[in-house]
Amino acid sequence: MSNSSNRLIIFDTTLRDGEQSPGASMTKDEKVRIAKQLERLRVDVIEAGFAAASQGDFESIRAIATAVRESTICSLSRANDRDIARAAEALAPAERKRIHTFIATSKLHMEMKLRMLPEQVLLQARNAVRFARQHTDDIEFSPEDGSRSDEDFLCRVLEGVIDEGATTINFPDTVGYAVPEIFGETIRRLRERIPNSDKAIWSVHCHNDLGLAVANSLAGVMIGGARQIECTINGLGERAGNTALEEVVMALRTRRAYYNLDVGIDTTQIVAASKMVSQITGFAVQPNKAVVGANAFAHASGIHQDGMLKSRETYEIMRAEDVGWTATKIVLGKLSGRNAFKQRLTELGIELESEAEINAAFVRFKELADRKADIFDEDILALVSDEQQSQDSEYYRFISLAQQSDTGTTPSAKVVFTIDGEEHTSEGRGDGPVDATVNAIESEVGSGAELVLFSVNAISTGTQSQGEVTMRLSKDGRIVNGVGAHPDIIVASAKAYLSALNKLHSKVERVNPQV
Amino acid sequence: MSNSSNRLIIFDTTLRDGEQSPGASMTKDEKVRIAKQLERLRVDVIEAGFAAASQGDFESIRAIATAVRESTICSLSRANDRDIARAAEALAPAERKRIHTFIATSKLHMEMKLRMLPEQVLLQARNAVRFARQHTDDIEFSPEDGSRSDEDFLCRVLEGVIDEGATTINFPDTVGYAVPEIFGETIRRLRERIPNSDKAIWSVHCHNDLGLAVANSLAGVMIGGARQIECTINGLGERAGNTALEEVVMALRTRRAYYNLDVGIDTTQIVAASKMVSQITGFAVQPNKAVVGANAFAHASGIHQDGMLKSRETYEIMRAEDVGWTATKIVLGKLSGRNAFKQRLTELGIELESEAEINAAFVRFKELADRKADIFDEDILALVSDEQQSQDSEYYRFISLAQQSDTGTTPSAKVVFTIDGEEHTSEGRGDGPVDATVNAIESEVGSGAELVLFSVNAISTGTQSQGEVTMRLSKDGRIVNGVGAHPDIIVASAKAYLSALNKLHSKVERVNPQV
Repeated sequence: MSNSSNRLIIFDTTLRDGEQSPGASMTKDEKVRIAKQLERLRVDVIEAGFAAASQGDFESIRAIATAVRESTICSLSRANDRDIARAAEALAPAERKRIHTFIATSKLHMEMKLRMLPEQVLLQARNAVRFARQHTDDIEFSPEDGSRSDEDFLCRVLEGVIDEGATTINFPDTVGYAVPEIFGETIRRLRERIPNSDKAIWSVHCHNDLGLAVANSLAGVMIGGARQIECTINGLGERAGNTALEEVVMALRTRRAYYNLDVGIDTTQIVAASKMVSQITGFAVQPNKAVVGANAFAHASGIHQDGMLKSRETYEIMRAEDVGWTATKIVLGKLSGRNAFKQRLTELGIELESEAEINAAFVRFKELADRKADIFDEDILALVSDEQQSQDSEYYRFISLAQQSDTGTTPSAKVVFTIDGEEHTSEGRGDGPVDATVNAIESEVGSGAELVLFSVNAISTGTQSQGEVTMRLSKDGRIVNGVGAHPDIIVASAKAYLSALNKLHSKVERVNPQV
Repeated sequence: MSNSSNRLIIFDTTLRDGEQSPGASMTKDEKVRIAKQLERLRVDVIEAGFAAASQGDFESIRAIATAVRESTICSLSRANDRDIARAAEALAPAERKRIHTFIATSKLHMEMKLRMLPEQVLLQARNAVRFARQHTDDIEFSPEDGSRSDEDFLCRVLEGVIDEGATTINFPDTVGYAVPEIFGETIRRLRERIPNSDKAIWSVHCHNDLGLAVANSLAGVMIGGARQIECTINGLGERAGNTALEEVVMALRTRRAYYNLDVGIDTTQIVAASKMVSQITGFAVQPNKAVVGANAFAHASGIHQDGMLKSRETYEIMRAEDVGWTATKIVLGKLSGRNAFKQRLTELGIELESEAEINAAFVRFKELADRKADIFDEDILALVSDEQQSQDSEYYRFISLAQQSDTGTTPSAKVVFTIDGEEHTSEGRGDGPVDATVNAIESEVGSGAELVLFSVNAISTGTQSQGEVTMRLSKDGRIVNGVGAHPDIIVASAKAYLSALNKLHSKVERVNPQV
């Protein structure tokens, strides 16, 4: 493996940089589920989190390091011994582990954020890599805000960390400011100027603020000679997000003859990964999103359809099945037994830990099958997600709801739910049944949180589908997303609201770095 | 104005190529409203539709040509006299008009779709431009599937049409297959090889299937020397959509020193345009969408916030206010009078045609203010949109709804609505109140349409907000989006369903070309 090889490493940071999106925080179980899917997708490296950020992050990384065997597991850490030791500890169970350490190298960041002199930053970077070497041979170093750093200084820092044993040098465009030609040329020049640059694999980490993340990543590879791309599923990430894995991988595949690079990704797992990440984080994917949007493969205009009939290639550059779009199939129904259900869970890659968990999920499945004739894979995923969420953090738990609205009267709702195990019934009125439901819950809970985003998406097609509600709450500067699924969207709303309250209730102290 | 000038022309095709997205079809009034917003945004050219596609398209173009004074108005037309004459007729009232004609030049398209020999295609292209010259001096020509056409043949066709008087040559990447360097080089080479190439402005038209539309457009300009970019608001368009106007414009602005090109866009109108297009078409914008996504300017992670506090530039490359993000303000309430309402409509750029229309909208506003304490600009836009939609096509019209659901019983709904002016009351049951509502309507209407997409977004923040429901129906190969807004999302769902049924009912025969 070298920079001159044709093999390109796909480094997924959905669980670290993606999770830093406001409201995208995930539980340990959710992260493990996504990590298992990333393993099925065959990503080379999974950045599982930032071990020193919080106890929760630490435990998530450890659980992923235990559950995933094929991909390298990586933890981010600042350039200090404490962070690095914590990362190493979390990664201990991993088959293959990587420590990814970073420090800012731009004048602005060194002065305003670190309040350190360049020489101090250089020394700290070297020391950090040297210390990390005691724990693993696979060490990645990122100069934060690299694209706005003084190049001479950057060369000294990168030469220094390679000298200490850094095996991957990641060049991030932290603020999404880069344009392809300049970005690629910068990496090429850095590699030329740094005497020991060939001892490390070069990597790119781009943000999409100007819609150029994919192009910048590819320029980093083609012009700059990088051989690792950092990306996230659905382009999840702060602001406009990171490079979308599905886009950059499909560009490399579709234009294989031009790029002449091999990626190890099993592209047929892309859509499943996209749906899972969207379902867990509550970040919807817009219909006109490349590769994974609902419209990405639709050809509905008259002339196109005519063209399609005459020759499929006329308008199709990728095949929907190559990225895992398949016609939604009815997989289970009312009469399906526990074994069929359990088998489908396994096929979907869902591993419930105990028989008790499978039983609980099966009870929910039967309840759903009573209400909904056809059960799709998406329904099962939502059900398990919902079940695991409740188990993770059941301070508030939904029991039942009655609501009504009638033109000319004020909508009302009665919600029964538990607070710390104790049953509460409360009633509320509002502008609509969702407002009435939230008011009912708030009259008992009194969280005072502000609802900043509300959205509903159907899990499959047809009104018979379950509605998946996302509610984003903001309180004292914290932002959480709650997700709830149910055929009755008012019930789904109540669940989403309680789920968000649970997240607010579990006070997490964490630090989110940015690379 | 020439290819060596620093002035870049922004050509918006939201109303033509954007509208070709499955379900994005718009009424004449909606198109005029968007066109007026595009004028405020100061786009240079508005492609208003394809006059020969249908009577509706023709009338929409004519209405826009009458309403808009600042931007050039353009109609697409196939390369035949009938289409071109129809375009010229629709554009007659325009201050500045452009005819955009196209024909496929790739082997695949000529053989499979046109069933024509290359010589026939060349002749038809020349004849079309010559005929168009009788109607206007501003003529654009596009070789469909240009990026997959034989280059020698392409040179002959383009030289021929410039010779006939084409003033803009548009090079489309119809299927979204291009990569920046090759795309830019191809245009540069074509301009070098074609002797009279300097007599036309060159243009690019890119699709985002591989996430490269913005980069391809910029490469077309920087490498290829093009001086027009075709794009749409929110990147609306078939499949993964077109180049997003907001992304390419903000890339050019933010990196002004590098690109050294002037665009005439008033960027502070971008967010208003984005919201309007999303609201009218029912195509939601994902939170992590560049520039116009809800998260595009959020900095919620710990380190970032710290950095932000210390220096705004640390992480911000654009200012939210530069693209028109402003804190949502309460603009009107229950006590606001007709004059205040009318003034706000004017400020929002909404021009209702008659006093009767203003009165009808004001009645709706009062109804809304009775239910909802704070009225935001978004509410007013939704209300007017809703009102105009009903007037446009009132075959089915919502009157009232009563619904209830209670855990353990089957949800039920009673809907009162008119069919062709006659009042009907129907009841239904279902898995949830939305399903019950749709079943109630279907029990009277019996459309047999399939619901393929259901989504709800809140128009502003808070549960007090109105829910905006989009329902996409599919029937006999036709796809329509219905949109409904109301504080009660079940009522909004009923309205959205009836709105979609209205669209299905207005049988439109049209041809959608692809450039």
